[in-house]
Amino acid sequence: MRREITGYSNPLVKRVRSLREKKHRKREGLFLAEGLRIMTEAREAGILPEMLFHASEADTHPLAVALMDAVDHAGGEVIATSADILSKISGKDNAQTVVGVYADRLTPLAIVDRNEADIWLVAQSLRDPGNLGTILRTGDAVGAGGLILVDDTVDPFSVEAVRASMGALFTQKIVQCRWEEFIGWLRSGPGELIGTSLNTDQDYQQPAYKAPTFLLIGNEARGLPADYEAACDRLVKIPMLGKADSLNAAVAAALMAYEVRNQLRRRA
Amino acid sequence: MRREITGYSNPLVKRVRSLREKKHRKREGLFLAEGLRIMTEAREAGILPEMLFHASEADTHPLAVALMDAVDHAGGEVIATSADILSKISGKDNAQTVVGVYADRLTPLAIVDRNEADIWLVAQSLRDPGNLGTILRTGDAVGAGGLILVDDTVDPFSVEAVRASMGALFTQKIVQCRWEEFIGWLRSGPGELIGTSLNTDQDYQQPAYKAPTFLLIGNEARGLPADYEAACDRLVKIPMLGKADSLNAAVAAALMAYEVRNQLRRRA
Repeated sequence: MRREITGYSNPLVKRVRSLREKKHRKREGLFLAEGLRIMTEAREAGILPEMLFHASEADTHPLAVALMDAVDHAGGEVIATSADILSKISGKDNAQTVVGVYADRLTPLAIVDRNEADIWLVAQSLRDPGNLGTILRTGDAVGAGGLILVDDTVDPFSVEAVRASMGALFTQKIVQCRWEEFIGWLRSGPGELIGTSLNTDQDYQQPAYKAPTFLLIGNEARGLPADYEAACDRLVKIPMLGKADSLNAAVAAALMAYEVRNQLRRRA
Repeated sequence: MRREITGYSNPLVKRVRSLREKKHRKREGLFLAEGLRIMTEAREAGILPEMLFHASEADTHPLAVALMDAVDHAGGEVIATSADILSKISGKDNAQTVVGVYADRLTPLAIVDRNEADIWLVAQSLRDPGNLGTILRTGDAVGAGGLILVDDTVDPFSVEAVRASMGALFTQKIVQCRWEEFIGWLRSGPGELIGTSLNTDQDYQQPAYKAPTFLLIGNEARGLPADYEAACDRLVKIPMLGKADSLNAAVAAALMAYEVRNQLRRRA
């Protein structure tokens, strides 16, 4: 269905704008993704928004036209509006010309098939939405199955996380669970849990990784709790030569994920 | 010298607060770094702030006391103030209990000794302060000499970049220059320039890298200009298996930097 909204105080504009806050996303089970690039990634992964807002600037762009047609065809709403109202929705002066409202994409841990992928990323108490999105983007690049968020983490559906994921939010499975639930599920099937830690001398390039490998990334400030480290099949250390004793969490995740991927492709 | 400031409208508070903006940093040749962890990294690298602001909460912390004594001893100013005024300076509700005002740390390209380090990171038109800080942090970890910022990049002394660097801003050399200046300097001595690109089939793990290696990282959205790619000694590609065709710039920099470092340490 296509329609037009021109008024700032339209209740739908207010409702969509409220999705910038976690409590409203949670209540509605919806989130925002902005921009043609990310929304086209989603479409190519077979995922369409329930609502698509567009400014007139978007109307002639072939990717925008394809998106609008697809949403319309699938029974979603295509809503023409002004650049100003899009700015209001997105909270930015230079808003994208398309904004989509998507149903949230959490996958229950119980239905994850671990054999679908060689690598799974697991992050504990991650705090930064940019790191979360970047880890998803890296997961897509290494052919990971998804990101399992353990304990209380930043919301994967925040605008910042969606943006940093560059669309990988739509290609990676996203799971949220408690540690006990995760470790119970993990031990019910094959797979090694690898933690990065300062409390080991084993270099991250030393072990021979095998599929499926679960890479456990700790909180940005505190790293992994001692009992989580103790539950790992193996702890490894990324060598650091400088003054600092840690890497950015998304960088550490990428170094580990590419080490596993590179080993598997050399052996393939 | 030690003194106390209690008034919000004190001109020095206003002046320091203004350093959150690039134009004021540029005019004054000063920048802000916040928090004991980063300021202690700086002190350990032999760098002290010209002014140190602290709330009374910091007065009993041994690292804070060591910092204050060092600043006082070196002839800098140690200024006691309130948590509220520190919040005003830092623009955050939960401000750190110490804030330092540092002289900017740019190194002219002409005095850089390339043989001081095996790896140098070079970033072109980088836009995101978090990426810039993260690249510095990775540079510290791999024992790089510094970060050479080519063309118009985000300010390395923004509060966000300083924070993301986790102190590496004080251990890595930071250079700003135009491309022509960089390439002229590069070709006046040894060293290979390696660019990551989609326009090649050479895997990033294939070449044998040798010191000094200069790793060229392109702009987040556009990658490297064609003529910059053409000027590289070698283009390499980080394999990507997913839907996306690029990695986060700081992640790509880290994968490249660790590949070079890992090769050099295996051969050492």
